[in-house]
Amino acid sequence: MIIGALEMGGTKMVCAVGDENGNIYDKITVPTTNPKETFKEVIGYFTGKGICALGIGSFGPIDTNKGSKTYGYITSTPKEGWTDCNVVGTFMEALNVPIGFDTDVNAALLGEVYYGGAIGLQNVAYYTIGTGIGAGIMCGGRLLCGVSHTEAGHVLVRRYPGDTYAGKCPFHKDCFEGMASGPAIHERWGAPADELSDRNEVWETEAFYIAQCLVNLILIASPQRIILGGGVMHQMQLFPLIRQQVKEMMTGYVKYKESDDIDTFIVPSQLNDEQGIKGALRLALDAL
Amino acid sequence: MIIGALEMGGTKMVCAVGDENGNIYDKITVPTTNPKETFKEVIGYFTGKGICALGIGSFGPIDTNKGSKTYGYITSTPKEGWTDCNVVGTFMEALNVPIGFDTDVNAALLGEVYYGGAIGLQNVAYYTIGTGIGAGIMCGGRLLCGVSHTEAGHVLVRRYPGDTYAGKCPFHKDCFEGMASGPAIHERWGAPADELSDRNEVWETEAFYIAQCLVNLILIASPQRIILGGGVMHQMQLFPLIRQQVKEMMTGYVKYKESDDIDTFIVPSQLNDEQGIKGALRLALDAL
Repeated sequence: MIIGALEMGGTKMVCAVGDENGNIYDKITVPTTNPKETFKEVIGYFTGKGICALGIGSFGPIDTNKGSKTYGYITSTPKEGWTDCNVVGTFMEALNVPIGFDTDVNAALLGEVYYGGAIGLQNVAYYTIGTGIGAGIMCGGRLLCGVSHTEAGHVLVRRYPGDTYAGKCPFHKDCFEGMASGPAIHERWGAPADELSDRNEVWETEAFYIAQCLVNLILIASPQRIILGGGVMHQMQLFPLIRQQVKEMMTGYVKYKESDDIDTFIVPSQLNDEQGIKGALRLALDAL
Repeated sequence: MIIGALEMGGTKMVCAVGDENGNIYDKITVPTTNPKETFKEVIGYFTGKGICALGIGSFGPIDTNKGSKTYGYITSTPKEGWTDCNVVGTFMEALNVPIGFDTDVNAALLGEVYYGGAIGLQNVAYYTIGTGIGAGIMCGGRLLCGVSHTEAGHVLVRRYPGDTYAGKCPFHKDCFEGMASGPAIHERWGAPADELSDRNEVWETEAFYIAQCLVNLILIASPQRIILGGGVMHQMQLFPLIRQQVKEMMTGYVKYKESDDIDTFIVPSQLNDEQGIKGALRLALDAL
């Protein structure tokens, strides 16, 4: 079975072909410019490859409600040129195969659940912490979704004591993404994350924001495992700091077997940044 | 069909018999003392009434995982005498009928979904804001539940500017419940909520804490309706303040049809504090 997988990001698109076991046979990257140019290149890549379905994990917000007139669209994104962009319709017309469509973070979550660090688990959260912050959440084996997909990267947070940084989110200023994304770290400390690795205060601050959002998620959705990916999470010194702060903030209130062993409860992705594209394979399978 | 319904609260137990249409035929209240005494009275009430099932909505934390050894127990409650209390086992033995068991707030949510202000909706949140704070959340027609039930009353919150109150939660001090429960209002302002109705600063502060938690829930679970119950929410002047602050905090980021009309989106319970006991009827039906 040859399956198409597309990870739509704000700066680049990853196009791949693979199979139902999560193997990726071929992969290219296309820069994200405007929909017309970018989709032309992406469609060119998949044309003639014999794919039986295409799975798309996309930046958002997107419309994943199949009953909606704008199902398959990117909706109110601040990214210029991409507002009200009909993603599913465009690929359906060009490739004539079933299309699976969900957020980039739900795709990454599925990658972890089917091929990565959460195989067999029914209750899992995946966060990406990089240029933006987002989360995919699975409860009882189903992706958490109300009227719309989760936007857990924009939750309101309490400030780290003494942190006077204004925040980087164009919508909420000092929400989670506004305080803890890669660009927020860069602006607050005057250098990109990977040049700040030895600055302890940077990572204490960062861990504080991440930990409180994990604590709130644990209280709401009690996952068996939380997987953290994205560029900022390549700073491995963050993990012990986050685990320590989660334990302190929980104060023992909610306890369950899986959360007791904090080192296997809060973990890095093990899929080398392929969680999103592997998850897109799964979205394609679900569409078949 | 005669159904038993039991709402287990920290100060009182409501025992009732009703039917599958949400009608309550008879209802009594029993004070919550210790399990032995209290259960004896409750069992006495239901004995001989011919109930075909019993639904129980309980204070918590409780174990709702049917695969667990302690399924049906109240677990780590701070309430003296009630830790590790086998609720389902006790009633099963005494009454010999199927028992439905969930949190008091999930019961209230079901009451609203089947008989109250959210009939026919698939994505709904119910908060009780009173002596404690708790939430029941339904996504895609299913109660949100991971390894354990939600504990959304204890999420960490940002402080209202200038609010120096330490917080009332025995576990987290200044979490949502710690800052916004009835006892927190009483301690912060020196009088119970119902004596403070005309003090605007009290309700601006209270609305700030409630609104931010609703905003975070909207971001995570995008409900079609949010119903607010509990003693504090009898202060109806809170509703316009909460609605206004939710709109301001969202800054238009997440938008969907149901959230646009804020007056029908965030609403009081219409079940006159019977949402919990009516929902318990539903828990009994689900157990049949």
